[in-house]
Amino acid sequence: MSEPLVFLNGQLIPASQASLKIYDAGVVLGATVTEMTRTFRHQPFRLEDHVARLFRSLKYVRLDIGMTPEQLVAASRELLANNTKLIAADDELGLIHFVTAGEYGSYVAVPGTPVRTGPTICMHTFPLPFALWAERVQSGAHVVTPSIRHVPPQCYDPKMKYRSRMHYFLADQEARLADPQALALLLDLDGNVTETSGANFLIVENGTIVSPTLRNTLPGISRATVIELAAKLGIPFVERDIQVHSVMNADEAFLSSTPYGLCPVTKINGVAIGDDRPGVVYRRLMSAWNELVGMDIAAQFTSRIDG
Amino acid sequence: MSEPLVFLNGQLIPASQASLKIYDAGVVLGATVTEMTRTFRHQPFRLEDHVARLFRSLKYVRLDIGMTPEQLVAASRELLANNTKLIAADDELGLIHFVTAGEYGSYVAVPGTPVRTGPTICMHTFPLPFALWAERVQSGAHVVTPSIRHVPPQCYDPKMKYRSRMHYFLADQEARLADPQALALLLDLDGNVTETSGANFLIVENGTIVSPTLRNTLPGISRATVIELAAKLGIPFVERDIQVHSVMNADEAFLSSTPYGLCPVTKINGVAIGDDRPGVVYRRLMSAWNELVGMDIAAQFTSRIDG
Amino acid sequence: MSEPLVFLNGQLIPASQASLKIYDAGVVLGATVTEMTRTFRHQPFRLEDHVARLFRSLKYVRLDIGMTPEQLVAASRELLANNTKLIAADDELGLIHFVTAGEYGSYVAVPGTPVRTGPTICMHTFPLPFALWAERVQSGAHVVTPSIRHVPPQCYDPKMKYRSRMHYFLADQEARLADPQALALLLDLDGNVTETSGANFLIVENGTIVSPTLRNTLPGISRATVIELAAKLGIPFVERDIQVHSVMNADEAFLSSTPYGLCPVTKINGVAIGDDRPGVVYRRLMSAWNELVGMDIAAQFTSRIDG
Amino acid sequence: MSEPLVFLNGQLIPASQASLKIYDAGVVLGATVTEMTRTFRHQPFRLEDHVARLFRSLKYVRLDIGMTPEQLVAASRELLANNTKLIAADDELGLIHFVTAGEYGSYVAVPGTPVRTGPTICMHTFPLPFALWAERVQSGAHVVTPSIRHVPPQCYDPKMKYRSRMHYFLADQEARLADPQALALLLDLDGNVTETSGANFLIVENGTIVSPTLRNTLPGISRATVIELAAKLGIPFVERDIQVHSVMNADEAFLSSTPYGLCPVTKINGVAIGDDRPGVVYRRLMSAWNELVGMDIAAQFTSRIDG
Amino acid sequence: MSEPLVFLNGQLIPASQASLKIYDAGVVLGATVTEMTRTFRHQPFRLEDHVARLFRSLKYVRLDIGMTPEQLVAASRELLANNTKLIAADDELGLIHFVTAGEYGSYVAVPGTPVRTGPTICMHTFPLPFALWAERVQSGAHVVTPSIRHVPPQCYDPKMKYRSRMHYFLADQEARLADPQALALLLDLDGNVTETSGANFLIVENGTIVSPTLRNTLPGISRATVIELAAKLGIPFVERDIQVHSVMNADEAFLSSTPYGLCPVTKINGVAIGDDRPGVVYRRLMSAWNELVGMDIAAQFTSRIDG
Amino acid sequence: MSEPLVFLNGQLIPASQASLKIYDAGVVLGATVTEMTRTFRHQPFRLEDHVARLFRSLKYVRLDIGMTPEQLVAASRELLANNTKLIAADDELGLIHFVTAGEYGSYVAVPGTPVRTGPTICMHTFPLPFALWAERVQSGAHVVTPSIRHVPPQCYDPKMKYRSRMHYFLADQEARLADPQALALLLDLDGNVTETSGANFLIVENGTIVSPTLRNTLPGISRATVIELAAKLGIPFVERDIQVHSVMNADEAFLSSTPYGLCPVTKINGVAIGDDRPGVVYRRLMSAWNELVGMDIAAQFTSRIDG
Repeated sequence: MSEPLVFLNGQLIPASQASLKIYDAGVVLGATVTEMTRTFRHQPFRLEDHVARLFRSLKYVRLDIGMTPEQLVAASRELLANNTKLIAADDELGLIHFVTAGEYGSYVAVPGTPVRTGPTICMHTFPLPFALWAERVQSGAHVVTPSIRHVPPQCYDPKMKYRSRMHYFLADQEARLADPQALALLLDLDGNVTETSGANFLIVENGTIVSPTLRNTLPGISRATVIELAAKLGIPFVERDIQVHSVMNADEAFLSSTPYGLCPVTKINGVAIGDDRPGVVYRRLMSAWNELVGMDIAAQFTSRIDG
Repeated sequence: MSEPLVFLNGQLIPASQASLKIYDAGVVLGATVTEMTRTFRHQPFRLEDHVARLFRSLKYVRLDIGMTPEQLVAASRELLANNTKLIAADDELGLIHFVTAGEYGSYVAVPGTPVRTGPTICMHTFPLPFALWAERVQSGAHVVTPSIRHVPPQCYDPKMKYRSRMHYFLADQEARLADPQALALLLDLDGNVTETSGANFLIVENGTIVSPTLRNTLPGISRATVIELAAKLGIPFVERDIQVHSVMNADEAFLSSTPYGLCPVTKINGVAIGDDRPGVVYRRLMSAWNELVGMDIAAQFTSRIDG
Repeated sequence: MSEPLVFLNGQLIPASQASLKIYDAGVVLGATVTEMTRTFRHQPFRLEDHVARLFRSLKYVRLDIGMTPEQLVAASRELLANNTKLIAADDELGLIHFVTAGEYGSYVAVPGTPVRTGPTICMHTFPLPFALWAERVQSGAHVVTPSIRHVPPQCYDPKMKYRSRMHYFLADQEARLADPQALALLLDLDGNVTETSGANFLIVENGTIVSPTLRNTLPGISRATVIELAAKLGIPFVERDIQVHSVMNADEAFLSSTPYGLCPVTKINGVAIGDDRPGVVYRRLMSAWNELVGMDIAAQFTSRIDG
Repeated sequence: MSEPLVFLNGQLIPASQASLKIYDAGVVLGATVTEMTRTFRHQPFRLEDHVARLFRSLKYVRLDIGMTPEQLVAASRELLANNTKLIAADDELGLIHFVTAGEYGSYVAVPGTPVRTGPTICMHTFPLPFALWAERVQSGAHVVTPSIRHVPPQCYDPKMKYRSRMHYFLADQEARLADPQALALLLDLDGNVTETSGANFLIVENGTIVSPTLRNTLPGISRATVIELAAKLGIPFVERDIQVHSVMNADEAFLSSTPYGLCPVTKINGVAIGDDRPGVVYRRLMSAWNELVGMDIAAQFTSRIDG
Repeated sequence: MSEPLVFLNGQLIPASQASLKIYDAGVVLGATVTEMTRTFRHQPFRLEDHVARLFRSLKYVRLDIGMTPEQLVAASRELLANNTKLIAADDELGLIHFVTAGEYGSYVAVPGTPVRTGPTICMHTFPLPFALWAERVQSGAHVVTPSIRHVPPQCYDPKMKYRSRMHYFLADQEARLADPQALALLLDLDGNVTETSGANFLIVENGTIVSPTLRNTLPGISRATVIELAAKLGIPFVERDIQVHSVMNADEAFLSSTPYGLCPVTKINGVAIGDDRPGVVYRRLMSAWNELVGMDIAAQFTSRIDG
Repeated sequence: MSEPLVFLNGQLIPASQASLKIYDAGVVLGATVTEMTRTFRHQPFRLEDHVARLFRSLKYVRLDIGMTPEQLVAASRELLANNTKLIAADDELGLIHFVTAGEYGSYVAVPGTPVRTGPTICMHTFPLPFALWAERVQSGAHVVTPSIRHVPPQCYDPKMKYRSRMHYFLADQEARLADPQALALLLDLDGNVTETSGANFLIVENGTIVSPTLRNTLPGISRATVIELAAKLGIPFVERDIQVHSVMNADEAFLSSTPYGLCPVTKINGVAIGDDRPGVVYRRLMSAWNELVGMDIAAQFTSRIDG
């Protein structure tokens, strides 16, 4: 068997056949919650935590998938076990979970067509595209604050991982005007720093890691790992409203996210942060993280940079 | 040929085969713009206006579909012509356009899989589900203001018709706690009335139709028809920030939207509006609308109510 | 019979006996809607309009007083007819209506005490205290913008006339720090001018009367009279968000309210408006108003200034 | 003597005669500050703390009652001592203090009527209506977030206990649309959870009690007791902005308020919190509270449920 | 005499000697109001209007310059008459007025140094630097919306022309990241379009000129000229809150400001407006403006572009 | 040599000759960052900290002064050394640093005039005007909350020390309406207490020093000294959003700022704080501060009060 499988509504099907009806609520409404997990040395990292967060998101949007977290973890491991066989030893898998509000019968082309009831549940994998992030992991990312603001939690709460991401899409377009490699770092309606479209954002001030509060950001699993590793290393971690002035004057800044764990941020709005290079706290945390997973995470990325 | 067709990325395919890759940006990001048009007596209503608005949305999200508005109108008419043959004489078609940001190659299960570049463009039709709205059209809808607020235009602008609709999904869930038939009427961050998840909202005060401003609402094609018909009938139309107090004390209220043109609203938060029945301005507008399209629009709905 | 009567819950009782239980919701919650009407030459001014607004307020707070507007008008006229006999020819009556959410049984001192159900309904009169306003009517009021902001309509809507007026009470205390005779002119949360604790606020710019919008202000009956008289006199009237800069640079400003109709405002935050004296538009409007009611309204006030 | 007494402006009078003039500022403006204390086993709970908070409220609204806190405590104890004699052994008293801005002379029906100067000061008692809360204390309350928002502190500060409660009144009406037994849990203008109309709101996350900050909530005496008991029991207590997502995903939630100390909250917007039953932290706190006051508080409530 | 003069505190001095003490409030606080007028064919354009606006600004900041508007106009004309003699026939003068809060005595280096009391009043001229704007006038400007927001009128009101312009300075820096020639178009705190650091911003929709309201923008003299010329040409002009979506989809956009009258805007955030070229309404207005001043305004600019 | 020197763009010049061109950006835009340091016993207090903060401000506004912090400290010490010789033994110097965006060539009166490129850099000194603050230091300041709000950090960040201070100027004018000696204590847009135009503001509650957060306030060097001294004295220090209610009910309040270190605040909006006199925490902190600098700071002020 040469093709990876996809879990779709309880069935395992070949990846090339995995698709959503055009009248699925995931297409029609973007009313979708999701997770992304990765493997390190072919083992999923904190899969249980990702699934637990998915269930919190499901509760918030009131969708019942008819599975327990334990069942979903088991199904996830099974899928990973199968699909891992198909990748190279030095590759890793990303694992996506997503759940939509299900098929939207009103849009069916021929009335009477049977419509599946209940949410649409999907799990699928992909080899992590290391090259995509290699330069940033090596030299640091550039974040730009666009004029587009983050959606506030009284509209929908970013503590859920969701796919109604139009603001991210627009924000990244603005950021790329300033630098094609830039990532949008969205401000909230009060001008506080929140997160990028794919990562939590953290700064270091006088040896302390400072994070935006969870009011307007995802409680990232990688961010939680940072908290845990920082505690182990004796590096203080605090939450606080952060503004651009503090980012510009931070000693370091970095992103935390599933694919790379941590990625240095060396510029904001064209201004160098610290000495414009990955910092010491970043290096200490990554070193501990590497130890945790038994491999050099950043090297996996930078090895893909063409010589 | 017994199956309706779907236009997908330049191809006409049978409806039953129309689907999106699970890594399409429409699924992954909800970064999708859309339109919905309907036919009256099997002729599309203001198709050119819908297509023009779609192009304004596309400009805002910076997607280029490689077709002119005229070409899209022509393709739309062709699709309608084909699919109309398959419906009963007393049925009508809804026509959906949607455009997503295209396939999201990073999530491909097998690297090297060919990924289509450019946006995903889809048109599809469905027989209007009159029964779904028949009761409301006959007796009036109940709108409920949820605690969830509308996304403000500095996040993404509601003048675009989009599918990152998580807030609508959550708002309707809250509204249905008060009444399973209720529709959420979202307030903006300042407490002004905006729109429902599927319609513009209008009130009548002393013979004048009052609309929320376009700051936080879609410039609806049906709403534009109301403006046009009101002008013809000598009924004043103004835009203004509206709060719940004014809705409760309005003489009438109604929704404007593609499927039904206008639908009376007879209750807000459990409180009767006017005399709790469809009002005289509603009736005058619908009468003019019926004349415009040569049929009794509401009757099409109410005829589907089981006796 | 030498004592005025008070209408309380359907009974006419001597004024000296009119009181509310300490467990009435009007005392416990301030959940009270109200109106104030006055007589000119012993005839009530726009009583029907005041009663109609009271019914709009009652609808907003969902209280049913078991009377029609017509019945309340009739009862009001009866009360006025009786109490007017007791005042001097050159005095006038103020007429208060108020409705509370009724008795709050949980606070009854002895369980089992019979508790009246339904709202508490009260009408009472008082001779207008002309002296209180005489100086301002003659020379102009001083308004001061306090740091306290007006309650926004998403908390409770100022289009209802209500008695949860803590913010007014605090705002007037602040204003009096600047000038013991000053009145607080509250700003809304965005810094727009709204109203004082007892009146609408209007300015004149280049011959046009400019009013704050009704978003954050009461649709005053006296304000409606201004609109009507201005139309008759050919003076334009517009609604717009107004900030302090515009008030300072206005040609004129005035308050509109039941007791005096219009009162000039000649200072804001210590800065003279126009030439620091009642202006020409004020005089034209008052002149028309005097004609409407067949008497010199301001003279009634200024005649009470001690020589 | 068979009737309880009421303290009104320095006099002790029979409860049945206690009332406010219809022109008292408490009726006219809702400009009233208040407290509610209860007895446990006929002894007032933290009366000194309630009186101290009343004095902080009085300072904020600039009213001087001409008594020291000590004098007010003494008078309160005297009133309680008298009125306690009249209740059954298994009943308890609620004690209300309230102070209004005093009589509003302008509204006096007959000019020249003597008007009391200074604030109106009142203390009165009532047997706690246990039945009213018994079901909620036993099985948990349902809180619903209405579209009405809490008044922000720049209008008037919720750290004062006041009676301009129109927003609470409106919010509870909205909440009861969803469930006649529901209590409104008001959000602030930013969508953060604040308090109900009668209680502080607390959640438990991973063994930590989390409270909204005091920015938009009353510093409750019962809440302070929770802080004290939690410290004794080794349960962490933190303040933080809380949104609905966190409440839905909390392990437990409860209300703290004078009548019942703590009441479990088992649902928000129709969604079960934790396992939909009173939780372990609730039980530990109530157990400590029972010990503190020498009785089973909840049992007093649930014993009144009809079998 | 070969050097232009400067009016400083009542004296005419050679330009090369015009300076402010380092302890002037204009340096220390930025508490400065200002105007800029230009000449057309060596005659000042609407000088009286500029001076009138300066006096409105002075009233707002409570500075008294001890001159009437008429005296200031006269002094301005005298200065212009003198300095115009020194420029070439095809040059024009800009005329700056500014008034600071005066010398700030606390910062005087040697106590006892005589400190001038009262505001600092200055008028000075400069030949208009046509080359600076020539490209934009010819081909259209690019505006970019930065993350920095405009200062709201409850902090200080943009209806005054002032020099506390830090936000403009920061906003332009952000805009230039996207394009070194871009101008910042600031959004207000609600995401509405306001103005650039030097001009009003207007769009054209279906033949109507649409302007942001004056809530957050300067009532420009050039903007007033647009209103006047549009009326003459039968082009409707309305004020309304405008968002970026409407700018992107406008038929035209332009800046209005003293140096150039109107300058086309052909791009916003990298997206072409209309057909990316100066539009028909722009040309009609400029044509009328040229007629008004008897010269080709734009040609004056574009003639300075190096061939 | 009898005149103090001023450092201006690398030159030391006599103070009487120190001035800015009228076309310097510091005059034209208020785009200026600044610092103020003082001496105690003729030694500068925390000069390095002030210079470090200046460099953070410079980074935020993207100005490069071509000197390192160390060089600027050295130049500052040199200037102080020189100018200190000219003052009396019991006098002290204030030292101002300010940097503007440089000369604004467009406004040059005669084109071709050489315009200095790069920022304008100035350092100057002045003998501290003790008398100005003596009464407040002795008896306590009165702070008043004006209607003008503090500029929010999404416009420009108060963590930079800047000179676009129009809002301070306006706010102080409002405060002085209430009391000519009052200082404006600005609220932010949410009604939280921030700072005065010249100082941080702190309160004491139950023995804990409570400070507004740094979101809307300058991270003052004197405030940092308070944190340090409080730690040494075992007095807890916390940051939190503070509202007026808490200030009115605080045990103490004080300002921290360079000239006086700490100044008691004994009134807010006319209401006494604590017992209306400098408090015990104030005295403990000042006592430690006196020890730190080897002199009685307050005495230096109060000795200048005329007997």
